[in-house]
Amino acid sequence: MAASINELEEAMTVSQTTRWVYLFDEGDPLRRDLLGGKGSGVAAMSQAGIPVPPGFTITTEACNAYNDADHQFPPGMWEQALEALAGVERRTGKGFGDPENPLLVSVRSGARFSMPGMMDTVLNLGLNSSTLQGLSRLTGDPRFAWDSYRRFIHMFGRIVLGLENSPFEHAFENAKVRAGAHHDTDLDAQTLMEVAGEFKAIVQKATGQPFPEEPLEQLRHAIAAVFDSWMGKRAVDYRNFEKIPHDLGTAVNVQAMVFGNLGQDSGTGVAFTRNPSTGDKTLFGEFLLNAQGEDVVAGVRTPLPLTELARVMPTAYAQFADIAARLERTYRDVQDMEFTVERGTLWMLQTRSAKRTARAAVNTAVAMAQEGVISREEAVQRVDPDQVVQLLLPRFDPQDLEAAQKAGRLLGQGIAASPGAAVGRVYFDPDVAERQAKAGELVILARPETSPDDVHGLIAAQGVLTSRGGATSHAAVVARGMGRPAVVGAEDIHIDPEAGQMRANGRVISAGDWLSLDGGTGKVYLGQVTAIPPRFSEEGDLRELLSWADEFRRLGVLANADTPQDAQQAREFGAEGIGLCRTEHMFFQLDRLPIVRQMILNAGAARDGDATARAKYQEALDRLLSMQRTDFIGVLRAMAGFPVIIRLIDPPLHEFLPSYDELLVSVTRMEAQGASGADMQEQRALLQRVAQLREANPMLGLRGCRLSILYPEITEMQVRAILEAAVALAREGVTSYPKIMIPLISHVNELARVRATLEPVARAVLQEAGVDIAYRFGTMIETPRAALQAGRIAELAEFFSFGTNDLTQMTFGFSRDDAEAKFLDTYVSEGILPDNPFQVLDQDGVGQLLRLGTQQGRATRPDLDVGVCGEHGGEPNSIAFCHEIGLDYVSCSPFRVPVARLAAAQAALAHAAAERDH
Amino acid sequence: MAASINELEEAMTVSQTTRWVYLFDEGDPLRRDLLGGKGSGVAAMSQAGIPVPPGFTITTEACNAYNDADHQFPPGMWEQALEALAGVERRTGKGFGDPENPLLVSVRSGARFSMPGMMDTVLNLGLNSSTLQGLSRLTGDPRFAWDSYRRFIHMFGRIVLGLENSPFEHAFENAKVRAGAHHDTDLDAQTLMEVAGEFKAIVQKATGQPFPEEPLEQLRHAIAAVFDSWMGKRAVDYRNFEKIPHDLGTAVNVQAMVFGNLGQDSGTGVAFTRNPSTGDKTLFGEFLLNAQGEDVVAGVRTPLPLTELARVMPTAYAQFADIAARLERTYRDVQDMEFTVERGTLWMLQTRSAKRTARAAVNTAVAMAQEGVISREEAVQRVDPDQVVQLLLPRFDPQDLEAAQKAGRLLGQGIAASPGAAVGRVYFDPDVAERQAKAGELVILARPETSPDDVHGLIAAQGVLTSRGGATSHAAVVARGMGRPAVVGAEDIHIDPEAGQMRANGRVISAGDWLSLDGGTGKVYLGQVTAIPPRFSEEGDLRELLSWADEFRRLGVLANADTPQDAQQAREFGAEGIGLCRTEHMFFQLDRLPIVRQMILNAGAARDGDATARAKYQEALDRLLSMQRTDFIGVLRAMAGFPVIIRLIDPPLHEFLPSYDELLVSVTRMEAQGASGADMQEQRALLQRVAQLREANPMLGLRGCRLSILYPEITEMQVRAILEAAVALAREGVTSYPKIMIPLISHVNELARVRATLEPVARAVLQEAGVDIAYRFGTMIETPRAALQAGRIAELAEFFSFGTNDLTQMTFGFSRDDAEAKFLDTYVSEGILPDNPFQVLDQDGVGQLLRLGTQQGRATRPDLDVGVCGEHGGEPNSIAFCHEIGLDYVSCSPFRVPVARLAAAQAALAHAAAERDH
Repeated sequence: MAASINELEEAMTVSQTTRWVYLFDEGDPLRRDLLGGKGSGVAAMSQAGIPVPPGFTITTEACNAYNDADHQFPPGMWEQALEALAGVERRTGKGFGDPENPLLVSVRSGARFSMPGMMDTVLNLGLNSSTLQGLSRLTGDPRFAWDSYRRFIHMFGRIVLGLENSPFEHAFENAKVRAGAHHDTDLDAQTLMEVAGEFKAIVQKATGQPFPEEPLEQLRHAIAAVFDSWMGKRAVDYRNFEKIPHDLGTAVNVQAMVFGNLGQDSGTGVAFTRNPSTGDKTLFGEFLLNAQGEDVVAGVRTPLPLTELARVMPTAYAQFADIAARLERTYRDVQDMEFTVERGTLWMLQTRSAKRTARAAVNTAVAMAQEGVISREEAVQRVDPDQVVQLLLPRFDPQDLEAAQKAGRLLGQGIAASPGAAVGRVYFDPDVAERQAKAGELVILARPETSPDDVHGLIAAQGVLTSRGGATSHAAVVARGMGRPAVVGAEDIHIDPEAGQMRANGRVISAGDWLSLDGGTGKVYLGQVTAIPPRFSEEGDLRELLSWADEFRRLGVLANADTPQDAQQAREFGAEGIGLCRTEHMFFQLDRLPIVRQMILNAGAARDGDATARAKYQEALDRLLSMQRTDFIGVLRAMAGFPVIIRLIDPPLHEFLPSYDELLVSVTRMEAQGASGADMQEQRALLQRVAQLREANPMLGLRGCRLSILYPEITEMQVRAILEAAVALAREGVTSYPKIMIPLISHVNELARVRATLEPVARAVLQEAGVDIAYRFGTMIETPRAALQAGRIAELAEFFSFGTNDLTQMTFGFSRDDAEAKFLDTYVSEGILPDNPFQVLDQDGVGQLLRLGTQQGRATRPDLDVGVCGEHGGEPNSIAFCHEIGLDYVSCSPFRVPVARLAAAQAALAHAAAERDH
Repeated sequence: MAASINELEEAMTVSQTTRWVYLFDEGDPLRRDLLGGKGSGVAAMSQAGIPVPPGFTITTEACNAYNDADHQFPPGMWEQALEALAGVERRTGKGFGDPENPLLVSVRSGARFSMPGMMDTVLNLGLNSSTLQGLSRLTGDPRFAWDSYRRFIHMFGRIVLGLENSPFEHAFENAKVRAGAHHDTDLDAQTLMEVAGEFKAIVQKATGQPFPEEPLEQLRHAIAAVFDSWMGKRAVDYRNFEKIPHDLGTAVNVQAMVFGNLGQDSGTGVAFTRNPSTGDKTLFGEFLLNAQGEDVVAGVRTPLPLTELARVMPTAYAQFADIAARLERTYRDVQDMEFTVERGTLWMLQTRSAKRTARAAVNTAVAMAQEGVISREEAVQRVDPDQVVQLLLPRFDPQDLEAAQKAGRLLGQGIAASPGAAVGRVYFDPDVAERQAKAGELVILARPETSPDDVHGLIAAQGVLTSRGGATSHAAVVARGMGRPAVVGAEDIHIDPEAGQMRANGRVISAGDWLSLDGGTGKVYLGQVTAIPPRFSEEGDLRELLSWADEFRRLGVLANADTPQDAQQAREFGAEGIGLCRTEHMFFQLDRLPIVRQMILNAGAARDGDATARAKYQEALDRLLSMQRTDFIGVLRAMAGFPVIIRLIDPPLHEFLPSYDELLVSVTRMEAQGASGADMQEQRALLQRVAQLREANPMLGLRGCRLSILYPEITEMQVRAILEAAVALAREGVTSYPKIMIPLISHVNELARVRATLEPVARAVLQEAGVDIAYRFGTMIETPRAALQAGRIAELAEFFSFGTNDLTQMTFGFSRDDAEAKFLDTYVSEGILPDNPFQVLDQDGVGQLLRLGTQQGRATRPDLDVGVCGEHGGEPNSIAFCHEIGLDYVSCSPFRVPVARLAAAQAALAHAAAERDH
């Protein structure tokens, strides 16, 4: 009992002291937490003397108190609301429920963040059978009054009372039929009155209660409905998904109605202080004469450009332009504003920061910094790094894309494996694709899945489409490596190379038909969709913004690049070196594959001492040596003066061999057809060798440094090629910094063994040449054990690069290929995982290993260079984490280098701000 | 310069104060570190008044100083050795190099641990052309003297000077031919003198130096050779392998020679204080009259049992028996002794703890504790847990095995995948195997590899042999689960089911031929090798020892068991519950496989809403429900009163389906032969469905809790079956403690989701029945992420079981199947990894995750029950680690339960001892 008395006293104390309601001209605009976004905006405008229809905000705290108290307004709140309402009456000179001069209000939710699932606006609240008479008289427009009333009943019924929409619509359509009306506007006041009556009957029937006539009862209901909607399922789901706390609550804004639909001297519109599409510094927007906000949304009439407003209402326009400029100055950002002109008088209804395109975001940020409105630090923080990608890739013209979609040309969707827009004629055979490309055609290669045998077709193609495989399938990896757009695993598209066609969305597409692939969305279109090419050199504002970002960031930004072309592009995008050069990608080239196969097929027998095999093995190694030397000269030259981290051969060897399944089918078929002879023997032998190299789980099999340990000659050849390339460049006066990276270490002894094998090779090359090259040996940290044992591993590694792709696979126990195709989508869509951990670094698990590995590695070797070279290296949240744990650099695809530069700067600025606040 | 002077002074100080050499009657026998094992043994005996030929020990410190100083004896060492030699001269009344009464010595290495690769014994050192005359006179046997001399030159040349053996043997054989001698003993003194001369010439030719005549020079050489051998390649490799530190050094023992070959009143022998094979408490050994130690080793004459010594030399025997008893009392352990009788006088040459069989180890430990010689704690610590396995499995009779090997019946060797001895007639077709077994034959199933289709053959067989696959291949897993011996991946054995034969070691083996498989060594023999069955119930001493172990251990010992039979056996072996019951193993049974397949093949379509598929899916689930209920009743009944941890379905579904490759071949073949019709359609559809379920890396794919999330009906059925089984037993008055284990969690949300699905099912069953069962939900910690996030996961898990098999795979990035076949052997044999981490828990990496997971889990839930259920749960080193980090229990195969009980006790005792020392 004592406790309850205490609680009661506490509640009474709170009620005596808590301020639940603020008039717009009273609330502190900085208390966005208390007033919500909308409330804070109108408070700011009101207090700046900008004409805003009077109103008040009920705080987010009131919402929380209401929900905590089992749907009861907190003590005192209603009284404060009534007092504020009286204030609004005083400011407008109208009376709430006054039949003579009725005050009508809108009621809107307004949380701290804009949030779907929350209660919509209710307009014209306060109308009833008597106040509508006053409205009719005041406006001289009975039809307007009745139309407002029937809209209000409908809106209130649907939104506040939560009734079904269809009975209202049904009744309204019946009325139109009865009246022989085509459009809503054809209905007269009489009919609208009848409709209002029917609507009230609908409410009565559905709720068992009459429609509330009393304006205060309407208001009470509407406020409660806003509060209730905060804990509604949609809102809760959304917050769970977006990880927004549930205890923020929503504010309620009650505001005097103004009417833009009172004649040709009235109107309503929305506008931006700058063009949200281009960033141009001109007031941009549209308006409708004699209309209310909902008419703009309904799209019944075509709005006019804002420039027209200057013509038809020059005074209101001038006032608006002035206010817009003030708002942008005040908020120091582009504003998105709603306004209404009621019989020549301008009223501002809302202002908020404007959503904008990537281009506008970049251009306005740079322009505002140059104008001195914001600092360069702020400019850098204004642009979402992910948006920047839009400016760096060829992309489809959005209008043409929409047209294609409307025309039913969307064939299907797969995994967006490599971004960009590709248009070309589709071919299902890599040889044909290559031939047609050489003949000058734009070509798309479509295959059920790809293998190394298809690479020449892939090189020749604008883009690649497969119906099987995930984001790390052969097609995906090779396409990303070459910067080709790719859509993979499009399971609804049936690709039949033997029949020379594919089937999708009820259509049959033949070889030579045009196809457009969107590697950013995974969508596939029939025909040609217009693509817009990027030109980084012409992106002056972006380059400026990134140069500022470079001043603020601490993280280095390197690129993952395997060819001189990629390296060159990476440099242009501002990469400060190569963080991952995958040597095996060079092996996939068509002219090399036979030599690589010769090497692989003889490696085992050579190891077992077979002299013939040893000779063939050595011959292949010798040929590859000179090819790799040329590769490395190209890459190191393109990155002259910058570090180039070259990873030694990593994938399981069978990836370079023909597909086991295809061989099995071919041998079985030959056998069934009674074939024999040398060809048959050869195929069978090849099948056997490929079978021997097959693995149950190749991801966890004979790859990485394990290859170096079993077949040291291959990596010895690679190290020799690297150092010989560096020597050749040095003789030309070109400085290179090759860093040799040994992959997939799990025990320090592996590194010891491999380094002991390779270091003498490197030294020998330099000694032979009499040249000194500042090469380094380091390792990838990509098994959990390597991270756990980083202290020991750092004894022998001069740098660390976290391979977060593999590390994520092993830490979760997710095979990326299998997981993305089979269950990861479900995991993310059902909220089991917050994100796909292959896209956004899992900070709790994988991140913990990164943190531990970095700390322990540096404890052993304080100057250890540590970075990330997984795909996370180009993802902003992951980059922020890399900054936080003190990594030295991130490395990502060339086209994500600008993203990373920006994200790294933002991370540094956010970190510094957090430190200051601390 | 200052530094060198300091170093010199330091060296001089050391030389003044360091004692490098101890006479046997001076050294402290407890300083095994300083004197080595041999030196400590002879010191102990000398000081106990036991007759030992006088001698001295040069310390291990001298060896280290010698190796540190670039092969120079440390200052003072040689002088001390000469002084000690003088002491030996005094004690023997002989003179080293004295032609009249020559002292001859043996020189032997003696490290702390017995170690191969170290220098062998050199006997008769001190002989030269003049001392041999003295020896000849003193023994009255010139032939003996010359024979000793030529042996000495040979031994010295080979062992000390490191010369090739063959020139000596060649010269000796020539001499025999010249003399027309059949045996060595046929040669007379004259010929042996000539041989000695030739041997000296061989030394001169090979070294460019004459054979050292000067005894002190011989001694100096021999000591240096012992020291050098410490850093010899073989010794270093061995220490690396056994993880013995390199800075222990070896001692050198220089001992006066005594001669057992001076007539019928002389002899030499080896003996044990108890029978090392059975443990019987009787002096056991053998001796040779008129012989030296090396004659025993050479095996030229057959030794006599020790009992004969009592007959021929009763005094010496009585003295020996008395000494043996004293030594056993002193060392409190069974001793392995060497002795020589020289003209009636007994001399002890060495004593050390005896190596013994498992049976002897157990029996002597128990007997000595019962005799009061050692405590029960010591008895428990005396037996190597791994040895215990030998007593619990059928095993081949060692003599018969040797005979088979000698007869060339060894066919090959594979991976020892499941221990035990199996003998039967081999069949290559599971149907035939089953039929023959039903007809009463003992059967071995041999297949290239096995699939679920072969399980009935496996059940019928005594053992299984495959030519492909690793220790976790289907055959291996199923065989281990059923306790059948298995040899898998025997690549040299070509099994051709179609031809109905196999080829190995140049032989063709046909169906019906006898085969013997040793699942403990992986060896496969043609014909029948006699197997000895185990009888735990008759192993009284072992049961006694284990009951003592149970008093000392803290860790619980549970068993991995999937059937009532296994559970019963586990109980007999002392398991206190089941730590891992794999429900899917029940699915592999032949009568269930079609139903399981019906479930799997319809699960996807059912999920997508296909009504027919849903009905088939549900029908399969319903049928499996009643089967699983019966399974669980059996297992829970066998473990009445003990906890039973039941793991829900874990493996990828395609493991239950026919092999993709076989289907592909069969469909291709049918196509090539122009087949069509319903059968063809069906096969093709099946192929497609199996293809859909195929995964790139099934280990990291759709399995474990991921199946529960996609197909909740399967695990709901399992949970219902478990609880219904418990209810049925409760109604019979049988108490059960089912603990439901959710596998492969990597994020706490997975556990939340699965538990939210399953908990209501469990509650519903109990509510329907009105019975209360103390069931629990817990999880396996088998992904690195689960260990890293154990604190969160423990919020929803009532127990943890570390699945160290999978955890090892993911922490290292090793697929067990691929790694063991392709590179892990190389890793272990070349010392890159200290052990196969799938056999011995990797404490640095995987162990760190176990420690972290346990700490964090208990931080959230202090009473969290934590154990290990990977194969490491039965491995002694891993068990010790589990004890150290505070786990609650280990779980292992039934037949390893006794091993675990013993190992857990040893861990607890060792831990307690370490605490006391601290």
